[in-house]
Amino acid sequence: FSKRSKATANNHKTSSKYLVEFLDEMRPDLIRDHLRKFTRLPHLAGTEQNLKYAEEIMKEWRDFGLDSVEMVPYDILLSYPNKSQPNYISIVDHSGKEVFNTSLAEPVPQGYEDVSNIVPPYSAYSPKGHPEGDLVYVNYGRTEDFLQLEREMNISVTGKIVIVRYGKIFRGNKVKNAMSAGAKGVIMFSDPADYWATGVKPYPDGWNLPGGGAQRGNVLNLNGAGDPLTPGYPAKEYTYRLNPEEGVGLPKIPVHPIGFHDATHLLKNMGGQIPPNNWKGALNVSYKTGPGFTGDFKSQKVRMNIYSNNQVSRIYNVIGKIRGALEPDRYVILGGHRDAWVFGGIDPMSGAAVVHETVRSAGKLLKRGWRPRRTVVFASWDAEEFGLLGSTEWAEDNARLLQERAVAYINADSAIEGMYTLRVDCTPSLHTLVYDLTKQISSPEDGEEGVSLYESWHKRDNWTNDRDAPRISKLGSGSDFEAYFIRLGIAAGRARYTKNKKTERYSSYPVYHSVYETFEIVERFYDPTFRRLRAVAQVRGGLIFLLADSQVLPLDANEYADSLRKYADSIAHLAQTHAELMKTYNVSFESLFSAVKNFTNAAKDFHERLQTLDKEDPLQVRIMNDQLMYLERAFIDPLGLPGRPFYRHVIFAPSSHNKYAGESFPGIYDALFDIENSADPDKAWREVKRQISIAAFTVHAAAMTLTPPA
Amino acid sequence: FSKRSKATANNHKTSSKYLVEFLDEMRPDLIRDHLRKFTRLPHLAGTEQNLKYAEEIMKEWRDFGLDSVEMVPYDILLSYPNKSQPNYISIVDHSGKEVFNTSLAEPVPQGYEDVSNIVPPYSAYSPKGHPEGDLVYVNYGRTEDFLQLEREMNISVTGKIVIVRYGKIFRGNKVKNAMSAGAKGVIMFSDPADYWATGVKPYPDGWNLPGGGAQRGNVLNLNGAGDPLTPGYPAKEYTYRLNPEEGVGLPKIPVHPIGFHDATHLLKNMGGQIPPNNWKGALNVSYKTGPGFTGDFKSQKVRMNIYSNNQVSRIYNVIGKIRGALEPDRYVILGGHRDAWVFGGIDPMSGAAVVHETVRSAGKLLKRGWRPRRTVVFASWDAEEFGLLGSTEWAEDNARLLQERAVAYINADSAIEGMYTLRVDCTPSLHTLVYDLTKQISSPEDGEEGVSLYESWHKRDNWTNDRDAPRISKLGSGSDFEAYFIRLGIAAGRARYTKNKKTERYSSYPVYHSVYETFEIVERFYDPTFRRLRAVAQVRGGLIFLLADSQVLPLDANEYADSLRKYADSIAHLAQTHAELMKTYNVSFESLFSAVKNFTNAAKDFHERLQTLDKEDPLQVRIMNDQLMYLERAFIDPLGLPGRPFYRHVIFAPSSHNKYAGESFPGIYDALFDIENSADPDKAWREVKRQISIAAFTVHAAAMTLTPPA
Repeated sequence: FSKRSKATANNHKTSSKYLVEFLDEMRPDLIRDHLRKFTRLPHLAGTEQNLKYAEEIMKEWRDFGLDSVEMVPYDILLSYPNKSQPNYISIVDHSGKEVFNTSLAEPVPQGYEDVSNIVPPYSAYSPKGHPEGDLVYVNYGRTEDFLQLEREMNISVTGKIVIVRYGKIFRGNKVKNAMSAGAKGVIMFSDPADYWATGVKPYPDGWNLPGGGAQRGNVLNLNGAGDPLTPGYPAKEYTYRLNPEEGVGLPKIPVHPIGFHDATHLLKNMGGQIPPNNWKGALNVSYKTGPGFTGDFKSQKVRMNIYSNNQVSRIYNVIGKIRGALEPDRYVILGGHRDAWVFGGIDPMSGAAVVHETVRSAGKLLKRGWRPRRTVVFASWDAEEFGLLGSTEWAEDNARLLQERAVAYINADSAIEGMYTLRVDCTPSLHTLVYDLTKQISSPEDGEEGVSLYESWHKRDNWTNDRDAPRISKLGSGSDFEAYFIRLGIAAGRARYTKNKKTERYSSYPVYHSVYETFEIVERFYDPTFRRLRAVAQVRGGLIFLLADSQVLPLDANEYADSLRKYADSIAHLAQTHAELMKTYNVSFESLFSAVKNFTNAAKDFHERLQTLDKEDPLQVRIMNDQLMYLERAFIDPLGLPGRPFYRHVIFAPSSHNKYAGESFPGIYDALFDIENSADPDKAWREVKRQISIAAFTVHAAAMTLTPPA
Repeated sequence: FSKRSKATANNHKTSSKYLVEFLDEMRPDLIRDHLRKFTRLPHLAGTEQNLKYAEEIMKEWRDFGLDSVEMVPYDILLSYPNKSQPNYISIVDHSGKEVFNTSLAEPVPQGYEDVSNIVPPYSAYSPKGHPEGDLVYVNYGRTEDFLQLEREMNISVTGKIVIVRYGKIFRGNKVKNAMSAGAKGVIMFSDPADYWATGVKPYPDGWNLPGGGAQRGNVLNLNGAGDPLTPGYPAKEYTYRLNPEEGVGLPKIPVHPIGFHDATHLLKNMGGQIPPNNWKGALNVSYKTGPGFTGDFKSQKVRMNIYSNNQVSRIYNVIGKIRGALEPDRYVILGGHRDAWVFGGIDPMSGAAVVHETVRSAGKLLKRGWRPRRTVVFASWDAEEFGLLGSTEWAEDNARLLQERAVAYINADSAIEGMYTLRVDCTPSLHTLVYDLTKQISSPEDGEEGVSLYESWHKRDNWTNDRDAPRISKLGSGSDFEAYFIRLGIAAGRARYTKNKKTERYSSYPVYHSVYETFEIVERFYDPTFRRLRAVAQVRGGLIFLLADSQVLPLDANEYADSLRKYADSIAHLAQTHAELMKTYNVSFESLFSAVKNFTNAAKDFHERLQTLDKEDPLQVRIMNDQLMYLERAFIDPLGLPGRPFYRHVIFAPSSHNKYAGESFPGIYDALFDIENSADPDKAWREVKRQISIAAFTVHAAAMTLTPPA
């Protein structure tokens, strides 16, 4: 590790004076001000208020001193509740009368009572509909939950309404699973087991989710397609649009989210089904053994009343640029979304405030004469909450430029989701840079004066088994880096402040996507000094700075080699659970291991050659930098993964069972999934072999890009 | 035009001394020697002899002075006749007795009587089979021929054997059409109407095809997939292979080629069908009104006896390199195939001899101290005759490197197919370079001393309507540039000597793919002084030289703009044949015209900025060169054309009805094809709109690559 660190250290020196200035310039009080300013009003994608914030950001970025700032609109499919006919769920008696209705909105937090345009909790892109039927509880609605229901409990959901608790996986995957199982509607609820931190009061007295709160969110299964009506192409005025019913990833059955107060009523009245012990949430007492459970199952049903509309609406990205001094055609991107379900106190404005402060600090440096070697692009994305749409449309629009010219993409969604330590997910080639940088940033924690962020983080979240360094995870999805990393193969990373995963078992953070995500929840609970947000700003900003200004790109191919080895071991190990069948069907991972070895040698040789690079020769520097830049691109297969044409990265993809999670060697993983139950084992194992072959070839091909070019 | 010419002229100066030396070094007598040397024995792909030639070429390229030469093998699906059971076609009488059999081989030309391993005429990849049935004649087997048969003549070919004449379109398309129409076998013959030049004797007394000669050739419909068993990936040892029956593009019905002597027998006995006047070939007298036509149709049938085998075999590309002095990571490729159906006197060795001489001349320059700015790659491809397989596998293997680094690909198949003038097919950005270069090369024609190749060519084949310059055509396919141009988006071109298309109406050249393609046919008839081949060597070599050695890449975006305008006009004009329906379905080409206009302005601005480029600044030069290099790449859509995932160029693709022909805006063209007979006109017109939208976006995206990078 220290050897690698040295390898990148040299590059940092040249601009290190400015780096210190850049990081020191970032101020907690100003991050607070930015957050305050952009969380006063709801600013859902496609609304006037979100355009107003875009205009303000554009103006301020110009004032900060960026070379150019422009507004880039797209016309994409959005989804809103019908203002005159609210969505709700009822329990109906035998006469069809609605004997219980779920609430139409969350209780508005103090201080925001006069705010209009708070959208009530809903599942974006749910079709209209009024399905009525028996209710079946399917735990988290995961693939394994549905399999357990079917295979072990022998319960079919065909023609029934499914109720699942939020958490563990992306909600779109729950809906997809329910649809595949034949359900005619999906209700999702926040169970305190998953959205309640022990010993914490509900908002506003603490940061827990009140019983009337519920989680908004889209329920698409886009698999990276962007706007559902213009898959693969930017949604411009002249762009051809699919018919609404052909739209990519749209759910075909009504979906609606509720809080746990409402959920209790539905669950205690459902009757019939006895959930297994491992499915018991915090609400299980009432529905497993309570009196409601003995209610007359046949005479009571659940009815969903969904009136939401899909409509093509205009969204606005704000794109700001600092032109690179020497290599204007090399792009380093810092992008995060601006649209929020309501106020966006955490999601996304804690991140947007951090980007804003980064832009301000960069502007200061520009005025002092600094100009980065490469071009820096700042992006305020729109409509992330509707399926990463703003960022994906821009990626589609600029695909050629990005493919040839993008060095790295750093994502800036919510900057904080806990009060414990740093969390970084990134591509392996960024590991070393993240470690080097965090050693130059101070810990924001009380009582850690003089301690680096690296040390503070290392102490709290060591990688343990694998190595003695702070843990860095794979990128999954669920935020705007997706198109850049998974579709285009641009080195990417994200950083935020997080909770202690070992002790805090709730999902994401309790008020996630509720009306209670206010400025105050950050100011009172998550980061009263705003030093944690500053630390995140320094990480995100520092990454951008070093990627844009280092003479030699601070990307580490040796780290990629290490990760590939780990992933290959891991997938081969997983396959070994079918050791007998592996023999029967003559399946071997030899070619993949051999490719990884080859890659490892190529990476080592490359970094050795890099030591002797003549840094006075601009073409030689550019040539090796190009090899570093295009390394990530080498893992892209234009044919995409099976059934997911926009997921093109052979090493990483969002899990097919949970968009939030990253899967390594996803093609092989999916081919192996549930293979013991395959209807045609010969075909299934042939697909495993094909995927191993594709992975081995891709790793070989990536290794070739690191060898001397002629 | 002159303005553009000047724009590129500057670049040429720096290395023009060496260019003159490079062109002057090429000698007709040595081209003759190379051709003589590599046409003595049959060297079909996958045979020992073709490996021997590869080894010789490798050795000689090394001796000539290339920096590196390597052999690159792949294991691909080939197809050979069964040596112990020859293929033939019979006429059988009512008792099933074979009363006539077609010949098993072509009469061997004088001087080659003792040669073994001459493969008899066959249709490569035909499945085994013995279909027996009535024979239906379908002219050239084109889409329009089958439509005419069905719609106007009301004849079904379902369950019948189809006989078609060679010519007009790629034979694989004929077979595809026959399969779609339900035929159970296909016989292809060479009609003198298409393979006989007036006033010329058959070989060996002239260069016409003898009656016993027949055209070999593969009958695949690969659509750019490469090896049928490993579509999208190089066919290495570890590569996963499809089951043989799943192979891409394999014909499902037996196919066999015959000469016109044999064809006469089949045609005069077929009876029943009266071909329309426009279908009459040179043989029509006998089968339209001759006695055979009154034969007992019901009691005579045709039987095909096909025993060929598909087998995975090893092939060998030879790859030689000259390392670039300043930009070793920029590749200029000169590639052509080495495998031949038999001796390959014309196809491909006239081209391979030219490449050989080019390598020799480049080696001489290297010894005199020259080294090109960029890397030059020379390739001797294998298995072109089996579906462009050697070149496509190498493109798949090196896709990442080529995508990021390839400047241009110049193809070197047969260098001569006629005795009249130069023929060039290339991407529009190469037009200016071709004109500039041919002005520096002498005409090879007798009586044209002191006349440039440009003038000689201009005089014989003026572009007329469009512009006063020698005609340059679009690239189609049918040779090894396909994967480089159509799949990867690398600027590409080809040049050869050709016939006078206005007066010589035969298809390709008469002895094409027959045993009569010998060294002697070139030496005696096509190019006795070998000056025509030298001129072709100078064009191919000169293109490579200037692309590799010019400081600023000699690519012209303005020419691309002109061509795009022409193609847009042309496709819009075609659509106007449905003016009423265009209105009904609200179809407009406005967005495409607007994109072309935008591209035109971007190209103009780009070339103006190029005039003021600081050529002393290596990074600035590299940046603008990258814009020029990546211009062609910008037209690539990773999603590919509908149903043709490996044809990814939005502007150019092989015609869906004839692989040999290039179609511009192929997505739109195919959507419009036969739209008046569409079963679902609404859907069909929506597809037209979608394709216009994709084309417009792609042209806009390409324009963006030409604007200043930040």
